[in-house]
Amino acid sequence: MRATLLHGPHDVRLEDVPDPVVQRPTDAVVRVVAACVCGSDLWGYRGVRPTGEPRRVGHELVGVVEEVGSEVTRVRPGDFVVAPFALGDGDCAHCRHGIWTSCVRGAAWGAQDKDGLLVDGAQGEYVRTPFADANLVATPGMPDDAMVPSLLTLADVMGTGHHAAISARVGAGSTVVVVGDGAVGLCAVLASRRLGAGRIIAMSRHADRQALAREFGATDVVAERGAEGAAAVMDLVDGVGADAVLECVGTRESMEQALDVTRPGGFVGYVGVPAGGPELPIGRMFSGNLNVAGGVAPVRAYLPELLSEVLDGTLDPGRVFDLQVPLDEVAKAYAAMDERRAVKSLLRP
Amino acid sequence: MRATLLHGPHDVRLEDVPDPVVQRPTDAVVRVVAACVCGSDLWGYRGVRPTGEPRRVGHELVGVVEEVGSEVTRVRPGDFVVAPFALGDGDCAHCRHGIWTSCVRGAAWGAQDKDGLLVDGAQGEYVRTPFADANLVATPGMPDDAMVPSLLTLADVMGTGHHAAISARVGAGSTVVVVGDGAVGLCAVLASRRLGAGRIIAMSRHADRQALAREFGATDVVAERGAEGAAAVMDLVDGVGADAVLECVGTRESMEQALDVTRPGGFVGYVGVPAGGPELPIGRMFSGNLNVAGGVAPVRAYLPELLSEVLDGTLDPGRVFDLQVPLDEVAKAYAAMDERRAVKSLLRP
Repeated sequence: MRATLLHGPHDVRLEDVPDPVVQRPTDAVVRVVAACVCGSDLWGYRGVRPTGEPRRVGHELVGVVEEVGSEVTRVRPGDFVVAPFALGDGDCAHCRHGIWTSCVRGAAWGAQDKDGLLVDGAQGEYVRTPFADANLVATPGMPDDAMVPSLLTLADVMGTGHHAAISARVGAGSTVVVVGDGAVGLCAVLASRRLGAGRIIAMSRHADRQALAREFGATDVVAERGAEGAAAVMDLVDGVGADAVLECVGTRESMEQALDVTRPGGFVGYVGVPAGGPELPIGRMFSGNLNVAGGVAPVRAYLPELLSEVLDGTLDPGRVFDLQVPLDEVAKAYAAMDERRAVKSLLRP
Repeated sequence: MRATLLHGPHDVRLEDVPDPVVQRPTDAVVRVVAACVCGSDLWGYRGVRPTGEPRRVGHELVGVVEEVGSEVTRVRPGDFVVAPFALGDGDCAHCRHGIWTSCVRGAAWGAQDKDGLLVDGAQGEYVRTPFADANLVATPGMPDDAMVPSLLTLADVMGTGHHAAISARVGAGSTVVVVGDGAVGLCAVLASRRLGAGRIIAMSRHADRQALAREFGATDVVAERGAEGAAAVMDLVDGVGADAVLECVGTRESMEQALDVTRPGGFVGYVGVPAGGPELPIGRMFSGNLNVAGGVAPVRAYLPELLSEVLDGTLDPGRVFDLQVPLDEVAKAYAAMDERRAVKSLLRP
């Protein structure tokens, strides 16, 4: 089969690799119907993180089950499934607490699992999926092709935006600020609306993303950044600060901006992968009762709930994809996101 | 009147100072019935924080209202009242959100308020109380003298332990670890029991404090500290980690110990004043979904609820006081806590 490998900065290639097969009785092999490029994939692509040996990439996919191991009972060949970006066994204490990302037997797409067996990257034609019964969530019947982008967001960005909102306790009437206008930030706006937020202030400098944020439920848009951006937000909220601030970037600057606009007793819900490890200023958090919750999103836990709303048409996060290309053109998909010509690129094998 | 001043390291003195009077129509003057020494008072006493000019000290008191300003309507001369350690106006957005410690017109005992008028320290005979209606909570009638210690804990340590537990979302069946066996840590044990925790692991090296922790509801005691202590706790919880960890110390070591024993998705509820400003390791928090909530406790918000249980005898936090001395002997009260001969010293003017 063909799959994408990252060779180094600005060098992704589609190559021939071995076809995946069922290796353990709990495995399934899934044919990828759609995958995509994540903001976090750009770190390796940009050389921010060294690549080392060429490696398989991609961690978001929807597809059709091709083959299952002897112990797989909940999904069947032919099922259309959504897969979460982090794989758990569904059975350990952490999975049972809903934190699938901390599974003691967890695995990641594109890397070796705890037994040393490769789990294929999602940006390819097929993937071996460990713990298939636990991870794969099947739709009832084959969904319409137009629904594929929204289903694909449930593998990561929609569940991640939702995790930011849940972590920050967004609820009926909340005043929310969303820091970051990438796919996750836009989904965080949508998640906040869904949870009943009364006011949603999106921080965005790009006209197209501002427009989508408004369609997703943003009541206000602030284009300024840093201290100016924080001041503009504080003006909107009468100097009090927001109940919930969703930090969807991961830099020191974005976290500072988030803390700057959180009201005393409020929550920063953060899901931006910390880039370079900014540390949190506990003295400032202490004096203002600024709470910080979140982390790598356990999207599998949210999948059933969000899936049902995508299927019934009430949730349409797929609009974050503004580029669709065949898998052959994966290099274009990366370049478009790298050069900010696309919010998020969808790949069709 | 006489009041305590901190002159410098290991130098507290009871001195004659001007009698407080009503200066604004919202003030009350309260005769102090009991005050106490706080762990945080020891920072100045030990020279960890420079003292500068001699200054009034003490921020925990119960007393009897002596005189009220013309706009005070909710408390009357003769009322027995509990005062919170931080003073708010009860009316700003932050107070209305329950975060009295962030009041825009807030004041602190022993320091000048925002109009430049001194608010007396609590370790004295009388205090001027700004925003008396908002801050002072009266008991129905004069309480029995034996209840005074428990009432006094509502000014700070019981409300602070409760804030740690609330911030960490302690609820029915929670597994809780309490880091710190000072008065706040012991009250955090009691607060956890009150909130229905299923298991409470107290970390304490001192036999007398271990005994009180058990009486307050601790189901397990771990005497080890640091990495050894964390390992001992993890053994008790089958390697999973606790749902809620209450950090009641405020050092880098205690916060690390707290993060070490929090399960993925769990909460550290912290109320220890950050000593030297340890920063929080966001990379580690992110990957484990370790949430950090809390801060300086808005005890005024919790006062009515906790007061009713002290009055009906179901809550007895006053047992954290293991030394009672007349105000004359305030220097002894400090020395006993400094030398760890007492958990907490109560002063009777």
